[in-house]
Amino acid sequence: MLHISIVGTGNVAFHLAQAIADCKTLKLVEVVGRNPDVQGFPVSCSTSFNHISETDLILIAVADKAIANVVEQIPISFQGTVAHTAASVAMSTLGRFENRGVFYPLQTFSKTKALSWNKLPVFLESNTNQAQKHLESLAQNLQAQLYSASSEQRLKLHLAAVFSCNFVNALFASAEEILNTENVPFDVLKPLIYETVDKAFSLTPKKAQTGPALRNDQTTMQNHVQALTDAELRNLYQKLSELIQNQHGIL
Amino acid sequence: MLHISIVGTGNVAFHLAQAIADCKTLKLVEVVGRNPDVQGFPVSCSTSFNHISETDLILIAVADKAIANVVEQIPISFQGTVAHTAASVAMSTLGRFENRGVFYPLQTFSKTKALSWNKLPVFLESNTNQAQKHLESLAQNLQAQLYSASSEQRLKLHLAAVFSCNFVNALFASAEEILNTENVPFDVLKPLIYETVDKAFSLTPKKAQTGPALRNDQTTMQNHVQALTDAELRNLYQKLSELIQNQHGIL
Repeated sequence: MLHISIVGTGNVAFHLAQAIADCKTLKLVEVVGRNPDVQGFPVSCSTSFNHISETDLILIAVADKAIANVVEQIPISFQGTVAHTAASVAMSTLGRFENRGVFYPLQTFSKTKALSWNKLPVFLESNTNQAQKHLESLAQNLQAQLYSASSEQRLKLHLAAVFSCNFVNALFASAEEILNTENVPFDVLKPLIYETVDKAFSLTPKKAQTGPALRNDQTTMQNHVQALTDAELRNLYQKLSELIQNQHGIL
Repeated sequence: MLHISIVGTGNVAFHLAQAIADCKTLKLVEVVGRNPDVQGFPVSCSTSFNHISETDLILIAVADKAIANVVEQIPISFQGTVAHTAASVAMSTLGRFENRGVFYPLQTFSKTKALSWNKLPVFLESNTNQAQKHLESLAQNLQAQLYSASSEQRLKLHLAAVFSCNFVNALFASAEEILNTENVPFDVLKPLIYETVDKAFSLTPKKAQTGPALRNDQTTMQNHVQALTDAELRNLYQKLSELIQNQHGIL
């Protein structure tokens, strides 16, 4: 049975810890973090790296810029696999360990929202058979969908994730603000947004495109820009309309 | 039983015609359009406005800029209700008819993707009891979710729809392009995108936000911008990251 230590107490560490603790064929040994008072973790959190050498796999799930610092604190004698979960950090950052790897789950994690690892795409990178075996075992036990990706590919995957999750969510927040000015709840957009997503996957996003920019309906676009009181949103409206028109070769 | 004529053969007309024809308590009398050869409509399409005076309700579902022209062709003697389905066109455009209204379904329509009207938000505007009764009856028979909205409110609703559907879908298309450069299929984003939407509705978009811009992770953001070969996407990356940072009071 794979014995695992997690370093980090953020959103990714939280969901990994939950999933590993819930899995009867994996053993979460401990969580190590700067702050020992974090809530909701299935095992106690330690601020010490003393016990870490006993496990098979250390998963470093901290902020990208903190990874190098964490690496310094793990004994160089550690014989298990050391992997991080970051999209945009090269595997070579873990160069001091004999068995190293990356376990990148393509997902958005918030502590207050439970999620399933079943069929979740996880992109692995490793430098030895042992590291590969440990990371594959973790992914398979969590029932995730296994893929390989180099550090360079992972950066592109992360970019696609930022466009389709972080930026998309920011547009949802802007839509909510616009509705708030008319006292209309965000929930009214539920059927539209789910249909938008369903269509993107059933047709492809390009074939699913609709709206005034695609129709080059200048009157509606001008009415929209005038109705936006916020200069930043006015500018974004124009840039995103241009994106649609360029994607479809309009103008 | 409400007798309905539809003017238009585009995406909205297509889905309205399907839904009305499928509903045993509504009667789709005819579809009138410029092009009589359109495929897939449940009744024959006519290019003549001759029979229109016999119905209770004419639904004008044509491009916004074509509405004024269609209005001219409907006999002024028409006693039923004349309504359009456009988000950004004022009800007053139908001023020559005694009973007028707007039936605006907040949804994205593509002919190649079936959809359900059940619980779909529909925003009504009307000038007489008869018009209101006809439009309510249509919405109720389609099992849509009924709301009222003035022409001004409808413009804001449409704006929110453009941000959360048209622009979001364009970002999906950009994400797909980015993945294509690594031969990764768009489907790999399915769990991420559905989780993004689920989180937006279960937490609110603002609370659901994650990502490098929210963490103000400048290193990752710079790596991302450098990895984008397209100048337009580079610019958008920066603008949308600024949007997130402004929404959250960062910097």
